[in-house]
Amino acid sequence: MSSPEPIIKSRQTEKDVNGVSTQVVCTEFSNYIFIVLTQYGKIGTLISVTPDSRSNDISTPTFSTKVLLGKDEPLTHVCAKNLATFVSQEAGNRPVLLGLALKDSSIDSIKQMKEIIRSCQVW
Amino acid sequence: MSSPEPIIKSRQTEKDVNGVSTQVVCTEFSNYIFIVLTQYGKIGTLISVTPDSRSNDISTPTFSTKVLLGKDEPLTHVCAKNLATFVSQEAGNRPVLLGLALKDSSIDSIKQMKEIIRSCQVW
Repeated sequence: MSSPEPIIKSRQTEKDVNGVSTQVVCTEFSNYIFIVLTQYGKIGTLISVTPDSRSNDISTPTFSTKVLLGKDEPLTHVCAKNLATFVSQEAGNRPVLLGLALKDSSIDSIKQMKEIIRSCQVW
Repeated sequence: MSSPEPIIKSRQTEKDVNGVSTQVVCTEFSNYIFIVLTQYGKIGTLISVTPDSRSNDISTPTFSTKVLLGKDEPLTHVCAKNLATFVSQEAGNRPVLLGLALKDSSIDSIKQMKEIIRSCQVW
């Protein structure tokens, strides 16, 4: 018997980002938000983005990024933080598990991708 | 514009396994099959299950398991291999990325979980 409203919330969409077809899948788990952002159909590099502190002080929270699977390149960490920080913050400081397979990592494209992630909000 | 038939195939279900509510999410990527099997709503321990050889010889293929996230325990590797080997084989030797958060890892339960995974076939 499958429930009419699945307990694990998942949304996905496909959008054009500066001429490149981009797919996003967002899935909510109790301890992680799982997001795949792919322009190759692959899961790509898998990165965990974890808030360093759960304290309620007013300082800007910092995030640790760790590549779990795939090439560990500096740009990957920058993109991951840029894309996942707002998700983690909105999701009550839950860490984000992010799969990234991007052809285009320009600042403008990343900005558009954030909006696509927002359109698949599951948190 | 979201396409009517999403490019990234994903299926999920919820079943009772020996009295424990069990959720499964299966998502197909071109380079990985992503499966979460959870009895806690968490993504749990994340394991990659990778076929060691893509050769076409008649010997039984072997699989490497690696814990990417969470506790690295021997039982986790056993369960992961047990659950994911048939998926990888059916999916053209694609590796499987498996999230496991199990209350009950008995042989009988694992057997039932394999059937649930099969019911969410996306490969």
